[in-house]
Amino acid sequence: MALDIMIEEELPPPGSPDIDIARAASMRPIVALADDRLGVPAEALIPFGHYKAKLSLDYIASKAEAPKGKLVLVTAVTPTPAGEGKTTTSVGLNDGLNRIGLNSMVCLREPSLGPCFGMKGGAAGGGRAQVIPMEDINLHFNGDFHAITSAHSLLAAIIDNHLQWGNEQDIDPRRIVWRRVVDMNDRALRNINVGLGGVAHGIPRETGFDITVASEIMAILCLATDLADLQRRLGDIIVARRHDKSPVTARDIEADGAMAVLLKDALQPNLVQSIEHNPAFIHGGPFANIAHGCNSVMATKAALSLCDVVVTEAGFGADLGAEKFLDIKCRQSGLRPDAVVLVATVRALKMQGGVAKKDLGDSSPEAVERGVANLRRHIENLQKFGVTPIVALNHFVLDSDEEIAVVQQVCDELGARCTVAKHWAEGGVGAEELAQAVKDQLDQGTPEINLLYPDDAPLKTKVETVAREIYRAAHVDFSSAASRSLDEFSKLGYGHLPVCIAKTQYSFSTNPKSTGAPEGHTLEVREARLSAGAGFVVIVCGDIMTMPGLPKRPAALDIGLDGNGDIVGLA
Amino acid sequence: MALDIMIEEELPPPGSPDIDIARAASMRPIVALADDRLGVPAEALIPFGHYKAKLSLDYIASKAEAPKGKLVLVTAVTPTPAGEGKTTTSVGLNDGLNRIGLNSMVCLREPSLGPCFGMKGGAAGGGRAQVIPMEDINLHFNGDFHAITSAHSLLAAIIDNHLQWGNEQDIDPRRIVWRRVVDMNDRALRNINVGLGGVAHGIPRETGFDITVASEIMAILCLATDLADLQRRLGDIIVARRHDKSPVTARDIEADGAMAVLLKDALQPNLVQSIEHNPAFIHGGPFANIAHGCNSVMATKAALSLCDVVVTEAGFGADLGAEKFLDIKCRQSGLRPDAVVLVATVRALKMQGGVAKKDLGDSSPEAVERGVANLRRHIENLQKFGVTPIVALNHFVLDSDEEIAVVQQVCDELGARCTVAKHWAEGGVGAEELAQAVKDQLDQGTPEINLLYPDDAPLKTKVETVAREIYRAAHVDFSSAASRSLDEFSKLGYGHLPVCIAKTQYSFSTNPKSTGAPEGHTLEVREARLSAGAGFVVIVCGDIMTMPGLPKRPAALDIGLDGNGDIVGLA
Repeated sequence: MALDIMIEEELPPPGSPDIDIARAASMRPIVALADDRLGVPAEALIPFGHYKAKLSLDYIASKAEAPKGKLVLVTAVTPTPAGEGKTTTSVGLNDGLNRIGLNSMVCLREPSLGPCFGMKGGAAGGGRAQVIPMEDINLHFNGDFHAITSAHSLLAAIIDNHLQWGNEQDIDPRRIVWRRVVDMNDRALRNINVGLGGVAHGIPRETGFDITVASEIMAILCLATDLADLQRRLGDIIVARRHDKSPVTARDIEADGAMAVLLKDALQPNLVQSIEHNPAFIHGGPFANIAHGCNSVMATKAALSLCDVVVTEAGFGADLGAEKFLDIKCRQSGLRPDAVVLVATVRALKMQGGVAKKDLGDSSPEAVERGVANLRRHIENLQKFGVTPIVALNHFVLDSDEEIAVVQQVCDELGARCTVAKHWAEGGVGAEELAQAVKDQLDQGTPEINLLYPDDAPLKTKVETVAREIYRAAHVDFSSAASRSLDEFSKLGYGHLPVCIAKTQYSFSTNPKSTGAPEGHTLEVREARLSAGAGFVVIVCGDIMTMPGLPKRPAALDIGLDGNGDIVGLA
Repeated sequence: MALDIMIEEELPPPGSPDIDIARAASMRPIVALADDRLGVPAEALIPFGHYKAKLSLDYIASKAEAPKGKLVLVTAVTPTPAGEGKTTTSVGLNDGLNRIGLNSMVCLREPSLGPCFGMKGGAAGGGRAQVIPMEDINLHFNGDFHAITSAHSLLAAIIDNHLQWGNEQDIDPRRIVWRRVVDMNDRALRNINVGLGGVAHGIPRETGFDITVASEIMAILCLATDLADLQRRLGDIIVARRHDKSPVTARDIEADGAMAVLLKDALQPNLVQSIEHNPAFIHGGPFANIAHGCNSVMATKAALSLCDVVVTEAGFGADLGAEKFLDIKCRQSGLRPDAVVLVATVRALKMQGGVAKKDLGDSSPEAVERGVANLRRHIENLQKFGVTPIVALNHFVLDSDEEIAVVQQVCDELGARCTVAKHWAEGGVGAEELAQAVKDQLDQGTPEINLLYPDDAPLKTKVETVAREIYRAAHVDFSSAASRSLDEFSKLGYGHLPVCIAKTQYSFSTNPKSTGAPEGHTLEVREARLSAGAGFVVIVCGDIMTMPGLPKRPAALDIGLDGNGDIVGLA
């Protein structure tokens, strides 16, 4: 079949736009790749075109007792505008692992449609370390986010319909917490009044829209272990309070069944490939602040039953991403990482050391010396969980040997192996050293992972533990509203849940300008929200934006089709 | 390959729930069906699972010069709560045509997700005349409606963003006509205030949501002839007026390119099959009141290049559906029907004759005698377009011979062939007589179709022509607002567009209770709206609902998954 022909392609040189590299890359038919790389038969795949497929839930269930591979978590230092390349490193590491002879796949989050049209651009790796087909992955992909939007919208419509037709559950319209979502950056929808226009058109009330990735349903899809668990979690969602303040769930208003129907296909992980034809699941993409920021448990577990090694990532820096990966995703699912890779760049560390983005071109080992405190802090934090990370220094062409030496010295001090990774420019061959380091670590056996707090600690103690151990705050200051909420959640029987702290990703503290490794600060908790379906309590510190706006000149204005019907302008 | 095994199945007996029949039916792999039934190679298909596929635009373009098949339009008498079975008849007729040896396919509209959860249920035919996989078709299908929702949402976000960042185009926020859409029945979103909460969150203004099928983008997708035409039409959408009242288009705010990117895949027709394994395109589904109510031009034209006969349908009764099919879809695309089938049922005609739904079980040739005036009127109307329809009497088990005889006599009088069709109970074999009648008509040659009015008639004259010739109104009463708008549209250069009259589908008049064949009434035109991208002027007569509400007990509450993960409760 013509689709099966493989050619060794000449890719555009490093530094070319990601989309040009992605488009120049050949793709293997996904059915063939699934067969010879994962042993997955064609019947277990639901193809979406020739290069994407979903993996059936029945097949995943049939592999429940299969031997499991080793799990590698990729996390990073504190994010800066310079970019760290966590997804790029995950893809490159996976390509490298396959190059050195391991049977490995990577599990990533799905990009959100909204930000593609704002300024963030796509999120499918970069350079020679990308997953493809890049345009599909960045746009509608296989419809998962649309399904989440639909299920979320249905629940919202059923709530307002319940009010309209007699309000049998005695819902207090002022205490409806279920907002609406759309997968678009649309600031005008943040705060709205609905139900206007008279008696036939609903009960007037205040509400608003969030972006789809902020939906609790996104977190639920990513934590559910099967269809029954998905529906149970959907039913557990608390949508409002009654006039007596008791919680009303999605199950109380009988919305959970239809929501599960809408999400049934979306629960299936999506299989694609890297530029180097290595398998990748891309599935789910919850926010890393008000949710846990990891791809689905379904995808990670399925991958572990198909491969010897699975590389996955968690959002933001290790203080937020790795902590939530461990204390939420691992706690709920039983997963544990066998190795952790901490991504850093010389540029990011220089920014942590106070260098402005425009000055990053100049070599400055002194700035790295100052900024490396950030890296040190993250390594020490991960050691508290019982694992010393492998540091992946994601190489940039202007990095000087002196700068790199500073990083290596700190790693040596802390017993962390440091490797320079050049996958962005070179693809998997540039990540072979990193891959070998990961392989060596896996060969040494599995670390004993300690979660940060036990389930039965009080909710406030959980927050205080994360604040003290990870953020190195001296105090936690709970607002009276937050205190009241946490007490109430405990009384309602949710005290055993883990906490999901929503704070700025740009600092260990709540001040995004406080770079490096601040300590002794106060963590101010403004609000607590219960995500009873997802199974965590969100601790809101500072302003958390759940509906982004578009910039003055959105990326959308430069996106279009050329004369051949090909997409241009998608970053 | 296991998927290729065909078994002659025992389907559940007539009267079983549609979903049970649909699920019991075997399906052929769509790639095999496309190959041996349509001559379409695998490379031209984009599969969505094993039983659905999109047909590539490149392949469609490659068939531009292929010989074209004959087009059969299926339309109906005035709708009643008894149901007429237009989609069911279209599917059954196609199965019948294939049974008698013709190479035929059917083109239908896609169901809307929202109404599935309200009370309408699905829309994929019924009984033994269905298209499958029924659940997929009724739920997310291949993502076309989600793509339309996304493109619509993007344009809305760009408009409000434009206001927020300085309003370079001087848009009058009170004159923004572009609302938002969601594919859900959500009455609380009909009238909303957005942009609340302060300076960072947009400009406060009144707006609202419609259901996705009411989006002008839906009409555009269904009238576009290729990707370039799609983008041109998207750019032509008028979203607002400036303070000087001049129109602002989507092109003016540079939204058209990104919208086209979002809709690129949705423009590809979706191929599925009937229970009897005959090919079907299901593509697009615009409202039949504020839009033209037909599946896409892309699908119809592609089908004509692949088959000898193509069966298609138009929304509501022939007064609305067939008129718009001819005066909008055919006018714009150059398509012309070679035969027309008019679907009627004894039950519907009895309701037209004044019988209540609960009394339909009793034979009443007298009621049919009264109600058949409705059928007569539709036949005469179609004759004005130059074609005498074949009447398909969609058989119901309680129809008496005396009742049927009344229908046959009227058909004889008007020179229309009348056939009793039993596809609902029997599948294609029950529609063989109808199929033979259609074949005979096609063999007689192509009728000379007259569109109802020339392009260069004034807009008011176009409305008056439809009102007089089709609705048999004595007068048209334009509100002063409507008159002003129509004058303005002409001045702006849109006077050449056809009109799309939005009125109740339940009567020739604007009074839904006026059954049979009323005449001499007044058509009251309340408002005129310009759909410059779709290419028609909407003439609003009476209240037209563009966002349905949910009933007291929505169908959603009974939809769910059973223990095997199979969907239950989807009608």
